[in-house]
Amino acid sequence: MKRIKVSNNVIRRMPRYLRKLDDLSAAGVERISSGELGRQMGLTPSQIRQDFSCFGEFGQQGYGYNVVALRGEIAKILGMDRSYSAVLVGVGNIGRALMENFCFEQYGFTLKGAFDINPELIGQEVHGVTVHNFSELEPVLSQLQPDVAVLCVPKSMANSIANEVAKAGVPAIWNFTNIELQFEEEAPIIENIHFSDSLLTLGYYLAESMDEAAARAARSNHA
Amino acid sequence: MKRIKVSNNVIRRMPRYLRKLDDLSAAGVERISSGELGRQMGLTPSQIRQDFSCFGEFGQQGYGYNVVALRGEIAKILGMDRSYSAVLVGVGNIGRALMENFCFEQYGFTLKGAFDINPELIGQEVHGVTVHNFSELEPVLSQLQPDVAVLCVPKSMANSIANEVAKAGVPAIWNFTNIELQFEEEAPIIENIHFSDSLLTLGYYLAESMDEAAARAARSNHA
Repeated sequence: MKRIKVSNNVIRRMPRYLRKLDDLSAAGVERISSGELGRQMGLTPSQIRQDFSCFGEFGQQGYGYNVVALRGEIAKILGMDRSYSAVLVGVGNIGRALMENFCFEQYGFTLKGAFDINPELIGQEVHGVTVHNFSELEPVLSQLQPDVAVLCVPKSMANSIANEVAKAGVPAIWNFTNIELQFEEEAPIIENIHFSDSLLTLGYYLAESMDEAAARAARSNHA
Repeated sequence: MKRIKVSNNVIRRMPRYLRKLDDLSAAGVERISSGELGRQMGLTPSQIRQDFSCFGEFGQQGYGYNVVALRGEIAKILGMDRSYSAVLVGVGNIGRALMENFCFEQYGFTLKGAFDINPELIGQEVHGVTVHNFSELEPVLSQLQPDVAVLCVPKSMANSIANEVAKAGVPAIWNFTNIELQFEEEAPIIENIHFSDSLLTLGYYLAESMDEAAARAARSNHA
């Protein structure tokens, strides 16, 4: 695959395209123009063409995109064909929610094991995945060689466990701990799920809409 | 507050600044230059100054930013002083994880109620919040008048429930259902938590680093 440095914003739109193409495919749509795709996604057609041009030429002038073919290209760009393996560290509420409800396989990942310190969980299976004793982290990681560790431990332990995981050679961490991880040695690839950032962004837009409504009300009172 | 249209990218950096300033404050740092703040956050000083200039003038030439004062300004920008109220719809794993572990209060939100269809949950309290029968959605929403509905229901019901919530006048939805909600009437403010988008982005960066390592190995074999 063509590998040029692509901006983070473009990369983050790829999963959105994937979802949209899955929806279109499910609705029986076979091809779509960049104009129509843009309209449905709130993007300009030229932005869409530019995004895809980072990875090759997927459309045909005057014909548009073949939905299934474009979906396949994007899946490849995202590495969904690479059979990544993952482990989950911390089987609390959020860890368990992911193990029971999140379809890792659908996105090209297989969950190969989990870790916790709770004696009631150790040795059990959650949704078909064995929970190991956290004290076995290092030997089990060196046996499983996962591509990703899903980090769901309490904040207070997050950084030290992330460092253990990185030292064990795991190349990427999916971080649910809501802290910015700091590494003593070379940092792995980190992808953060920050619930609070998302809620605060929602708070911003709420504040904005309230202030705009108040301003409109003030103007109409003056009129 | 000054209200100009600010780009989504700038807004999404505000919660990151907030977290960084909280960390600095906890570490006893009283002031910080845009240069140092940028170094710690992977941003350029001019980007930082530009971001804040969207909302006013918070720094002082040659002095830098007062950490506590800047934190207060950003909290206000994000509406954290507005005492938002929220309800949660769908007390499954993820809903329960949020109710038990996510500190809504810390971000200016109070969880006033929850809804589920499970008879074992209805009438119970989860972390001090009453679970109402989903059939009571409309009257309870009209009584509580929440600013936000946290949507944690299964995918198959997500869209119809989101529309019910919107029709009941809830101005914003925090969407954990992993689908793009579609509204029959005016759409509320939507903030999506897309776990899959995040994991797929991680998959992209993993693929990139694998391809780069393979390319390096190929080059050194040729040398």
